[in-house]
Amino acid sequence: MSILVVGSIALDTVETPNGKADNSPGGSALYFSAAASFFAPVNVVGVVGEDFNFRDIEFLKKRNVDLNGLVVEKGETFRWGGRYHQNMNERDTLFTYLNVFETFRPHIPDNYKESRFVFLANIAPELQLNVLKGISSPLLTILDTMNFWISGRREALEKVIKRVDVMILNDEEIRELTGVHNINRAAAQLLQQGPRVLVIKKGEHGAVLITEDDYFVAPAFPVSDVIDPTGAGDSFAGGFVGYLASCPEINKLELRRAVVYGSTVASFNVESFSFNRLKAIDKQQIDDRVEQFREMMRF
Amino acid sequence: MSILVVGSIALDTVETPNGKADNSPGGSALYFSAAASFFAPVNVVGVVGEDFNFRDIEFLKKRNVDLNGLVVEKGETFRWGGRYHQNMNERDTLFTYLNVFETFRPHIPDNYKESRFVFLANIAPELQLNVLKGISSPLLTILDTMNFWISGRREALEKVIKRVDVMILNDEEIRELTGVHNINRAAAQLLQQGPRVLVIKKGEHGAVLITEDDYFVAPAFPVSDVIDPTGAGDSFAGGFVGYLASCPEINKLELRRAVVYGSTVASFNVESFSFNRLKAIDKQQIDDRVEQFREMMRF
Repeated sequence: MSILVVGSIALDTVETPNGKADNSPGGSALYFSAAASFFAPVNVVGVVGEDFNFRDIEFLKKRNVDLNGLVVEKGETFRWGGRYHQNMNERDTLFTYLNVFETFRPHIPDNYKESRFVFLANIAPELQLNVLKGISSPLLTILDTMNFWISGRREALEKVIKRVDVMILNDEEIRELTGVHNINRAAAQLLQQGPRVLVIKKGEHGAVLITEDDYFVAPAFPVSDVIDPTGAGDSFAGGFVGYLASCPEINKLELRRAVVYGSTVASFNVESFSFNRLKAIDKQQIDDRVEQFREMMRF
Repeated sequence: MSILVVGSIALDTVETPNGKADNSPGGSALYFSAAASFFAPVNVVGVVGEDFNFRDIEFLKKRNVDLNGLVVEKGETFRWGGRYHQNMNERDTLFTYLNVFETFRPHIPDNYKESRFVFLANIAPELQLNVLKGISSPLLTILDTMNFWISGRREALEKVIKRVDVMILNDEEIRELTGVHNINRAAAQLLQQGPRVLVIKKGEHGAVLITEDDYFVAPAFPVSDVIDPTGAGDSFAGGFVGYLASCPEINKLELRRAVVYGSTVASFNVESFSFNRLKAIDKQQIDDRVEQFREMMRF
């Protein structure tokens, strides 16, 4: 079943202890799409500037990613620059030029409106809400957000939270959102506010899936050479949602497996800059690493 | 098979956001013993002062812990005072009075010398080395240490590391010891220096077992009410070593299970101050929680 994603498209300039990449394609919508496209067709909504080179993301088309929802506006593409520290968990933002992204108002093409899976990547909650209203009969809606919206636009964000099925967030975000330090207590509280499923990402420490009646923990796949962590969260989400969209039925076990698939795709993504790694691998390599995951957790 | 543990015995004064305990029995050797005693007989070597009340650890005797190796010296017992922050991962040491522990020279009673499992809790590496030399034919030797010895007594510590089979340490310690940030690379380096098995503890994020040809990750059991983290590391070690001492054979799978048993016993320990929780539970409750663990990791 097809997936709709609405989010940012960026040209990233990234410095890590292992190298540098200038103006490489990135952004939440593209990282998500590259990851989800191993599993299901993806419809992307976003905006780019006249400087965006579509050849750089040509590989996505071959993987059944529909890019017709990408609007080209007069001006430059959203640009982000960041530098990662030695531990790869902390980064400094060097610059953020919103450019055409500043006035982004998602327009959902008619043929996207029947997407059954909707991923709301990290954009203003008001825009997320509008997207939700435009989709006729979603089977599963999944929300991402960030501290910026949690602290600055809480009221609007709470309206979105009330309407989604799944929320993917990291440990800091759920603490800030609920004001509760203990992750499990925080999750119990958030589950009262709308979502039926929570996925809490803990970076190199893996992820936890919490629902009313299930609790699943998955470690992160051990990557010896983290080259560039950019897009890890969005490629996690892409693997997670993509896997679910490929399942005949969504149940407890498939939700757990989706977390493992999300972690696995993210583990590939961080092995190189931009989409270099996700471009190079195939579904079989993902499945093989999922089996390594299983073996790594057996006791 | 019986286990020898050499380490500290303390009277701890602990403040956490959930309460306070004054002069409660603690210390690495006792936390280890309380945890290991669910699985195998334990022989303890340590020193206490005249103020130590043996009635407080009477429960250990009933669990087959031999306390005859505890020497009572003139003076006061080692005292430690600490205060945990809201997140329970950070703590301030309020005071440390070594007292009789300052001049501790482990004396191993003759009937302890045939212990097949030897746990060297966190004491000066020179003392750890002496203990090793006094044991006739250990089947498995397990080493714990801390940053204080890594930075201050590296040369002596390296001699101990060269002689042990298993090293249990946390993520910060292995980074400091090897100078390598990535845990997996750090582990590969440390495995060249003596130990065949490394267990790397990551607190609330679980633990990793790394050997030449195995890699196992276990999350931490999710505890909703962490009351007092004191002794978590030593009770982990106790569950780990205790479980192994109860196995007819030590192999890859049993090492993995030992990590899960270690995490499980530690998860009980943090649910109350001092030995309150480990005193109250039985082996069946540990086994039940291990099954919950298994269910929590299934996908």
